[in-house]
Amino acid sequence: MDVDRIRAETPGCAEVVHLNNAGAALPPAVVRDTVLAHLELESRIGGYEAADAAAPQFAASYRVLAELIGAEPDEIAFVENATRAWDMACYAIPFRPGERILTTTSEYASNALGFLQAARRHGAVVEVVPDDGHGQLCLESLERMLAAGNVKLVAINHVPTHDGLVNPAAEVGRLTRRAGALYLLDACQSVGQLVVDVREIGCDLMSATGRKFLRGPRGTGFLYARREVARELEPPLVDLRAADWTGPNSYELRPDARRFETWERFAAGQLGLAAAASYALELGLEAIEARVVSLAERLRALLADLPGVTVHDRGRLKSGIVTFTHESVEAARIVERLAAAPRRINARVSEQTYRYDAGVTPPPRVRLSPHYYNTEEELELAVSAIAAAVG
Amino acid sequence: MDVDRIRAETPGCAEVVHLNNAGAALPPAVVRDTVLAHLELESRIGGYEAADAAAPQFAASYRVLAELIGAEPDEIAFVENATRAWDMACYAIPFRPGERILTTTSEYASNALGFLQAARRHGAVVEVVPDDGHGQLCLESLERMLAAGNVKLVAINHVPTHDGLVNPAAEVGRLTRRAGALYLLDACQSVGQLVVDVREIGCDLMSATGRKFLRGPRGTGFLYARREVARELEPPLVDLRAADWTGPNSYELRPDARRFETWERFAAGQLGLAAAASYALELGLEAIEARVVSLAERLRALLADLPGVTVHDRGRLKSGIVTFTHESVEAARIVERLAAAPRRINARVSEQTYRYDAGVTPPPRVRLSPHYYNTEEELELAVSAIAAAVG
Repeated sequence: MDVDRIRAETPGCAEVVHLNNAGAALPPAVVRDTVLAHLELESRIGGYEAADAAAPQFAASYRVLAELIGAEPDEIAFVENATRAWDMACYAIPFRPGERILTTTSEYASNALGFLQAARRHGAVVEVVPDDGHGQLCLESLERMLAAGNVKLVAINHVPTHDGLVNPAAEVGRLTRRAGALYLLDACQSVGQLVVDVREIGCDLMSATGRKFLRGPRGTGFLYARREVARELEPPLVDLRAADWTGPNSYELRPDARRFETWERFAAGQLGLAAAASYALELGLEAIEARVVSLAERLRALLADLPGVTVHDRGRLKSGIVTFTHESVEAARIVERLAAAPRRINARVSEQTYRYDAGVTPPPRVRLSPHYYNTEEELELAVSAIAAAVG
Repeated sequence: MDVDRIRAETPGCAEVVHLNNAGAALPPAVVRDTVLAHLELESRIGGYEAADAAAPQFAASYRVLAELIGAEPDEIAFVENATRAWDMACYAIPFRPGERILTTTSEYASNALGFLQAARRHGAVVEVVPDDGHGQLCLESLERMLAAGNVKLVAINHVPTHDGLVNPAAEVGRLTRRAGALYLLDACQSVGQLVVDVREIGCDLMSATGRKFLRGPRGTGFLYARREVARELEPPLVDLRAADWTGPNSYELRPDARRFETWERFAAGQLGLAAAASYALELGLEAIEARVVSLAERLRALLADLPGVTVHDRGRLKSGIVTFTHESVEAARIVERLAAAPRRINARVSEQTYRYDAGVTPPPRVRLSPHYYNTEEELELAVSAIAAAVG
């Protein structure tokens, strides 16, 4: 991987040490320029006219997103953000009273709220699969819970936002498929940093965002819906592109995943998202994963050597997300000091929002999330700045 | 109104005769530049860091949108498009079996689909208020239908997409309020071209888009939710900003309209939308309305003089939307020829998607929708080009 070239192609690399890729990454110039060029065209000739002119690029955007995750273009819906992409999938599932939803201890709060609405509205029952000894979802427990029957949905995150672990998505897929339940994967933090292949994982539905490790624009996301599943699910909300209004009391849903879309959209963003996916594919997903994982490992090792610092990341497999606390200096204070360093260092305070344990909420952590465009020197600079901040 | 200055501030005016403002308007330079500047900042320092730096502008965006429609800032939710803004309102309404929804003959197809889902899921009953002699919603009929009782919701468009009429929104508001029903107004086509004041109209909920007459970016919209109503409605989908996850089985919704938002968003677009609202306020909503309505009237008069042309716009009050057909040349052919004119003219084919009448769908129309930045000369040029196209 030619890191020098990649950095030269990333305008932000000259300005900041960006270790907040789990928040929103620095886009490569080609992503920014794709968005700006389309916005420029819209302002010159009109928004609809610009979309007509770029029709081939919009069609291609489905193909490249499909290629990114090993799907077919008709299994992709462009949705303005990962939250709504996830919602369109989860809220489409027709739960009957007593049907079970299995999730994980580290599930994203917004998803947990979706489960609670499903529980209140339809009588679904939410159950949390315990962690294994590594902090990941425990596969034996999942298998046992599936065997007890009546599971409608297994819905987990691939990589949580608050912890460096990677959940065993493909193993969960095998167990879930065997049990005949639906499998919804929240890949918000994994697409763009890890190799994510929906066939290998075996999920039915998967949501992802543009702005994080994929390096796309804010205001973009997408949903994967397996062909056989998409055509069985009625989206919670539909518009005139998702369905045809066929008579006073009837409508017909599109047959493919685009039934989860809206006609109105951030069109320039969709093209930028496709440019980000192309860029990732050109670099190679395996090379990206190898470098992200190794930079994060290096960072954890450097942090672990600092007195008073505890690195919290669990998991047999670890992602590009690194979290730590200091015994006496608060996370917010450390993040502030990093932002004020001579060369600005972007880190983020990560609050524990899980409520399944109903225990005491632990103090916020500092979250550092390097990407492949970061350098070893940047990690060392960040760790020195942290040492100074807590010293 | 200084049209020369306004045109100089609108880059697209030099390139096209834009008569597709009901599709997506040409943004003023300040809107485009606001979006580009924020995207640029995101690419230089990071998406979250740029949002932190622009926090005062994001806070101000709620104030300016509120001012635009006569609301309070806590009654505004930023939503990525008008369809989802409308959805978040309509699908939040807790219908009981048999409760009635009253709408209008020209309701937008996406909204009609929402009513049908409410009917299927909750047993709500959809009823269409007939037109009056002018083609607008008939107020006497509405009053009679309200008096029959059990009306949960009156939901209509202010200005339909396919016809130049303006529905009597404020009169509908008075009747609906008196009957104790909820009132949801789709103002997608009216905000930015007409004076829209939610207190004067008396609606409880109102959806709007950025990209049409307001001249904001694509991928932006907003919802107005009256304070007393917002706090009673549970949004159909919630994320961790709409609600606090307070315990394993509990959550608490935000008290204000932002319970209808998502945390993830097209942040640069939100700032662009606010810039568009400020621009409209600076020009003055009454001056905008007067000029748009008068340009559209002039255009209708010019078109009516062309042999073989029928202007279709109904309504006692008319908007900036002008629709016509020619007795022998199809709408699509006319729009194509306008696009190919020496100076490109942007028009749009408008298909009749209403299904309430269950009759034969009439042929598509040509839709021309001038804005205040268009000139009388542009209208004449367009009409000459139409004469040539059908001649």
